[in-house]
Amino acid sequence: MSTDGLSRRRFFGLAGAGTAGVIAAGAAGGVIGRATAEEPAAPAGAAADDAVPFTGAHQAGIVTPAQDRLHFVAFDVITDDRAELVEVLQAWTAAARRMTAGQDAGEVGAVGGGQYDVPDDTGEALGLPASGLTLTVGFGPTLFTTADGVDRFGLAARRPAPLAPLPSFPGDAIDEAISGGDLCVQACANDPQVAVHAIRNLVRLGAGVVSVRWSQLGFGRTSSTSSAQATPRNLFGFKDGTDNLKAESPKALDQFVWVADGDPGADWLAGGSYVVTRKIRMRIEPWDTSTLAEQEATIGRTKKAGAPLGQRAEFDPVDFTKQVDGEFAVPPTSHVFLAHPTNSGTAILRRGYSFVDGSDGLGRLAAGLFFIAYQRNPETGFVQVQRNLRTDAMNEYIQHTSSAVFACPPGVTGDDDWWGRALFS
Amino acid sequence: MSTDGLSRRRFFGLAGAGTAGVIAAGAAGGVIGRATAEEPAAPAGAAADDAVPFTGAHQAGIVTPAQDRLHFVAFDVITDDRAELVEVLQAWTAAARRMTAGQDAGEVGAVGGGQYDVPDDTGEALGLPASGLTLTVGFGPTLFTTADGVDRFGLAARRPAPLAPLPSFPGDAIDEAISGGDLCVQACANDPQVAVHAIRNLVRLGAGVVSVRWSQLGFGRTSSTSSAQATPRNLFGFKDGTDNLKAESPKALDQFVWVADGDPGADWLAGGSYVVTRKIRMRIEPWDTSTLAEQEATIGRTKKAGAPLGQRAEFDPVDFTKQVDGEFAVPPTSHVFLAHPTNSGTAILRRGYSFVDGSDGLGRLAAGLFFIAYQRNPETGFVQVQRNLRTDAMNEYIQHTSSAVFACPPGVTGDDDWWGRALFS
Repeated sequence: MSTDGLSRRRFFGLAGAGTAGVIAAGAAGGVIGRATAEEPAAPAGAAADDAVPFTGAHQAGIVTPAQDRLHFVAFDVITDDRAELVEVLQAWTAAARRMTAGQDAGEVGAVGGGQYDVPDDTGEALGLPASGLTLTVGFGPTLFTTADGVDRFGLAARRPAPLAPLPSFPGDAIDEAISGGDLCVQACANDPQVAVHAIRNLVRLGAGVVSVRWSQLGFGRTSSTSSAQATPRNLFGFKDGTDNLKAESPKALDQFVWVADGDPGADWLAGGSYVVTRKIRMRIEPWDTSTLAEQEATIGRTKKAGAPLGQRAEFDPVDFTKQVDGEFAVPPTSHVFLAHPTNSGTAILRRGYSFVDGSDGLGRLAAGLFFIAYQRNPETGFVQVQRNLRTDAMNEYIQHTSSAVFACPPGVTGDDDWWGRALFS
Repeated sequence: MSTDGLSRRRFFGLAGAGTAGVIAAGAAGGVIGRATAEEPAAPAGAAADDAVPFTGAHQAGIVTPAQDRLHFVAFDVITDDRAELVEVLQAWTAAARRMTAGQDAGEVGAVGGGQYDVPDDTGEALGLPASGLTLTVGFGPTLFTTADGVDRFGLAARRPAPLAPLPSFPGDAIDEAISGGDLCVQACANDPQVAVHAIRNLVRLGAGVVSVRWSQLGFGRTSSTSSAQATPRNLFGFKDGTDNLKAESPKALDQFVWVADGDPGADWLAGGSYVVTRKIRMRIEPWDTSTLAEQEATIGRTKKAGAPLGQRAEFDPVDFTKQVDGEFAVPPTSHVFLAHPTNSGTAILRRGYSFVDGSDGLGRLAAGLFFIAYQRNPETGFVQVQRNLRTDAMNEYIQHTSSAVFACPPGVTGDDDWWGRALFS
């Protein structure tokens, strides 16, 4: 691989930069990115095509501002050789450093690689800017032992107790083929081509050692992770994530998101987090034939403004005691009522994406939410919230079809650091 | 439905507009759109969040600049009642007029509709700009007669002979469940949420009359339809569509894209076109283990610059006679050699999109190209090109898994016009 530090854009010189700008303008607001080059000290990741720093105490892609597009992939490890797995994690880290900086994963055919070599980058992101790409890695329960209890890589003693398959919940219709996994990588970017390119090159680098178990594209973010971001709308047409945990509340993040010293597995996981993913099919057609009153009572907010019922504006506080005509303004069966920290007793950082996977063969769009949430402990995070949603009126309109949990290590720091070093060392 | 002409953005007043701007900046270059408001006479659709005019001699979405994102849907008509079908086409046209202008499909709950009515818009695009949305309708062969020869809607005599299922080609692996259809709508936009919203609202308006047969999301355009656009890269990592038919060549468009007076079906189809769609799975993993020389010989262009082999720059003319070391620079089995008008004897307007539909259960990404091409006659367009690709070296790396053809009527003109009026009148 080249280490010359050239960005994909600079790789082509000035002509290439012009091309990149045109593509980026359509894809993700390239003009914004180019404008910031003339301005002082814009915060990293503030513009749609800027780079988000790869290194740090925490992995990027958790509390960094949620990008617009997602490609999430889970892998099975198909080798028994721990050294081979470590080599892939090291190669992935090196490629992730490059790609998140807007560079190629390696040389396409010049400098390092020749015409008769296999290119070290697949090429489809050549000319595109960094686009806010983040790559976030996680380790699944099966990496530590299989269902048969085999200690595959000598990691059994390192498994933190909270890293275990999620329990079943009422109404679940989990498809095991798109659930679980030994490893995961979450790629988020403001240009889907950049996210797809990143995952595809990690797949390529892992050939023979890891195999894609499942993969999910998300076309639109459904939560904000920063107060500076507007709240997006989910496929129910409602603003989603108004009261999400956000980067501006570091104390709440320390309490609910980051694994701390003294927590299980803290020797390698402190500063990390657990990610829970759930593919949630939305029953679009019955939802679209329900009245506005039914929809708002199901969610607990107004559709247009996103205000808590009984209030006027999106960020007005939810008032669970307020009554209108003798009824609670926010129905006790509404999603907001049951999911809210006040009533669930906990908080999670949501970072999900809308998906449409074509249609289902029955004349319906196969659409919904690919739910992603980060938390300090799945048992006191997602599981506790989900148990509280047992009576959620929204359950009539959704079905969970996949489930996975991964432990995400802290961020890589120095130049020699790599994904999982503390776990495998 | 409301006819007050307010855009989705203006619907919320100034506060809403601010929100819309923030969302758009992340999604599709909102700053560009807002900047043009202060500039004189930017061409329609020139900025990523502008509106593309819905009415005109031709339907938008064919030679108008290819947007970044796609949601394509094919419908089965499930009624036998011609009047019901006409009502849906009229309702679709009205909604398409509104949505392509950046408005909602109808009221969400104010003015026209009340709290206890079903909303006339599903809401997920509220606050988003027009985003270059185009909606392009087509009529499939089965609308005119079924496979059993039943004249379902009295249209048998109106079917132009070229509107017939495509023949089989060597190597095809066509899945009928994602092929064909009575109707299609192509939604293209620079924000996928806007494209998905448009299709979803047409599905809602067609409930009980039409049913989704198949649906495909595309995350990135793979062709340009205007010289002003940079050439994008497909999932082989190569620039695609350098020599595509483009809006700046109206004579070629008249020759190869638009149905003309005197052509079959011209009484209702003149000014229209035929669209062919093919889902083309790309064998990503073997491609990614081939050498750069093999890849370039397969395509017939260089990977980085996109230059024809033997030339230096992307837009240098392809020279099929040039030899290097006694061999043709552009191999006669390369895709460019066989597909080029010089050797295929025809031309088509390509408008395809890359897709990733997760993975295939065998550890591979289910990725490829959703090929879309417009032509004056499928027999002398796609079929002629595809027959010439019999010896294409690229065939080793691709497989066609779906097939469909639709006749796309001319554009709607006056306020009373609707999709298919000339056909059904």
